Amino acid sequence: MDESAIYKKQGMGNPLGFGKKAALVVVDFVNGFNDPEVFGGGNIPQAIAATKVLLEAARRNNVPIAFTRIIYQKDGSDAGVFAEKAPKLKTLTIDNPLSQVVPDLEPRDGEFIVDKTDASSFHGTGFGAWLTYHHVDTLIVTGATTSGCVRATVVDACAHNYRPIVPRDCVGDRAIGPHDASLFDMGQKYADVLASNEIIAEIERLGAQN
Amino acid sequence: MDESAIYKKQGMGNPLGFGKKAALVVVDFVNGFNDPEVFGGGNIPQAIAATKVLLEAARRNNVPIAFTRIIYQKDGSDAGVFAEKAPKLKTLTIDNPLSQVVPDLEPRDGEFIVDKTDASSFHGTGFGAWLTYHHVDTLIVTGATTSGCVRATVVDACAHNYRPIVPRDCVGDRAIGPHDASLFDMGQKYADVLASNEIIAEIERLGAQN
Amino acid sequence: MDESAIYKKQGMGNPLGFGKKAALVVVDFVNGFNDPEVFGGGNIPQAIAATKVLLEAARRNNVPIAFTRIIYQKDGSDAGVFAEKAPKLKTLTIDNPLSQVVPDLEPRDGEFIVDKTDASSFHGTGFGAWLTYHHVDTLIVTGATTSGCVRATVVDACAHNYRPIVPRDCVGDRAIGPHDASLFDMGQKYADVLASNEIIAEIERLGAQN
Amino acid sequence: MDESAIYKKQGMGNPLGFGKKAALVVVDFVNGFNDPEVFGGGNIPQAIAATKVLLEAARRNNVPIAFTRIIYQKDGSDAGVFAEKAPKLKTLTIDNPLSQVVPDLEPRDGEFIVDKTDASSFHGTGFGAWLTYHHVDTLIVTGATTSGCVRATVVDACAHNYRPIVPRDCVGDRAIGPHDASLFDMGQKYADVLASNEIIAEIERLGAQN
Repeated sequence: MDESAIYKKQGMGNPLGFGKKAALVVVDFVNGFNDPEVFGGGNIPQAIAATKVLLEAARRNNVPIAFTRIIYQKDGSDAGVFAEKAPKLKTLTIDNPLSQVVPDLEPRDGEFIVDKTDASSFHGTGFGAWLTYHHVDTLIVTGATTSGCVRATVVDACAHNYRPIVPRDCVGDRAIGPHDASLFDMGQKYADVLASNEIIAEIERLGAQN
Repeated sequence: MDESAIYKKQGMGNPLGFGKKAALVVVDFVNGFNDPEVFGGGNIPQAIAATKVLLEAARRNNVPIAFTRIIYQKDGSDAGVFAEKAPKLKTLTIDNPLSQVVPDLEPRDGEFIVDKTDASSFHGTGFGAWLTYHHVDTLIVTGATTSGCVRATVVDACAHNYRPIVPRDCVGDRAIGPHDASLFDMGQKYADVLASNEIIAEIERLGAQN
Repeated sequence: MDESAIYKKQGMGNPLGFGKKAALVVVDFVNGFNDPEVFGGGNIPQAIAATKVLLEAARRNNVPIAFTRIIYQKDGSDAGVFAEKAPKLKTLTIDNPLSQVVPDLEPRDGEFIVDKTDASSFHGTGFGAWLTYHHVDTLIVTGATTSGCVRATVVDACAHNYRPIVPRDCVGDRAIGPHDASLFDMGQKYADVLASNEIIAEIERLGAQN
Repeated sequence: MDESAIYKKQGMGNPLGFGKKAALVVVDFVNGFNDPEVFGGGNIPQAIAATKVLLEAARRNNVPIAFTRIIYQKDGSDAGVFAEKAPKLKTLTIDNPLSQVVPDLEPRDGEFIVDKTDASSFHGTGFGAWLTYHHVDTLIVTGATTSGCVRATVVDACAHNYRPIVPRDCVGDRAIGPHDASLFDMGQKYADVLASNEIIAEIERLGAQN
């Protein structure tokens, strides 16, 4: 029996569908994760290009928008185990150009910038409270890396009872094996994995209702 | 460049090492995850057998021990998005034999049973506070599935600044592709992935110091 | 200047108002907190009587309802600092009649029972995720004690961006000084403190809209 | 029966004692909370003066030190229910002199600055993970206000299984009634409330052991 058949037999991979109100989070699409010499590579540039189109649709339809960045204090006082595992993360301080959201996706006033020190956008941040405040029940997750901060955010979103939606062309990773493996796992256990144009259609449908 | 080389170049996969005090958590090794007709299959039986040896070493050396189980209320009042994605999870109620830890690893009095409704052992449970109370800084994570509850627990442990240690022969999954992919990701980003006999040696070394 | 004038001058105590959807939580109204020989006393019996009326209104209007209880494992494996401060809490095990919700407020099928080991209903429980799943933005908090688990729940609800509403006649404490002081603090900093009949009117207004 | 007698009879107010390693957190002693025209008043100046002595002892004994500040983003994107209750909080942006720690307690390099938007130092911050990383089991909490951010931090510290220690002369509030009421509640339910000179003696005793 192949792998997908096992999951199907065990009743996994059931579609969630959209709820009543979606938010969009753009995870760690900062210059350092778009540079193959730093933390980037693989299919990240293409994912940024596709996210640009999705972001514009979200803005047109008044979808609440958040951006995350990994930011460590200059004196390293908030660096911990995650930064021990990947020490170069500690260079991502607030003033480092590598820490800034890529120009193509530049945040606008009123969009929420979430600075974090760990993989999940929820951990040690105000992101969960922000979702509650905006009456969100569905979270569209784009960004990098698919197998890292995107996946950790999706797993937490599911545990917090948000419906995670992953546009497969708007998430990227430095290596394709981990990217593909995490798309498979997320689709089986935590999220709906869709094409971004399907998600844009849903955003417009929800936008027209409000 | 192959995938491992990309991670090496970007400074990932740095070893963490053990801290001063380790705990052992056995994630979801319950009957339902040891039955290929329910949620089991793959290499889970072998992982249970290897965990039995590790558990005995932990007991001999007074390592704090916790077991997790997925448990939903009978009326479904606490089922949410995770249970929508995999609806059969809702059958894992407190009285269901499938919800009980497998006989080979039966918990003893004083070992902490963590009932949870989501992938991570930390989410919505007293597990994190229990680690703090026991002065733990290092968390050995065994159980099932590698790509699900084990990985989610490891990612959260890292974010909480515990040193996650994964004995690669003591974690199992219903399918080997996701198992291997998650071992790779955890070793690069969140945890030290070791053989269980290396971990037993460390437990004995730490035990002899106390 | 008297105390209220200081708060007014500093711009505190601003009313929040109800949002779009309220839930009701009944905190720790269990037999042990209704018995002056155990953890009860003061105005708790009157608060239970007033909560009965509010609970009926909530049920009539399909308001999501949760009950919390303090429950420790029989072997004490989950007892920590809170139980060191008040060691008798450890007697509140799952089978102890003192741990059960008082007969006047008996939970019905589908109402969520939250077992917890700490003051806040949010800490180490699935309560927050349950609120998200039910699209709640406003949390009516009744129960005991006003200065303990009620207040801790209100402070966390505010931090999670739920609008906390406290019916002043539906919360009780073993001693009136701490009760009054916490009502004052909650009204200034975290919650709207109202009479239960005002809240019932709002529940009916919201119920009629849905 | 007077109030203290009720608590004693019910077995509350048991002393916790110090554990093996303490940290010190200075909560919201920023210029805005030291100015009676903004959020200050009452006994806050005296509490700052006493904290200065305690801080020096902590530094001499290598106690890990953190400072918290309430900081909102300039565009208000992270303001929620707490800021609705007290709207002037939204003026506390990163560049506002009122948001900076008072000169007498100026943080040094390597001391952890925790920016938060809510009462508790734990909520939506990296504070809990920082405590874990530093092997802390005991948390000395100073700052303002006693009935607000200090108390919320103490309640969360207790729930996370840290031993909260409150130096009664190093916490202050804009009004004395709420200050006294919260000291009473914390001493009965969540913390040991001591004089700062007793705490300094313990810090020196622990420091000499390490």
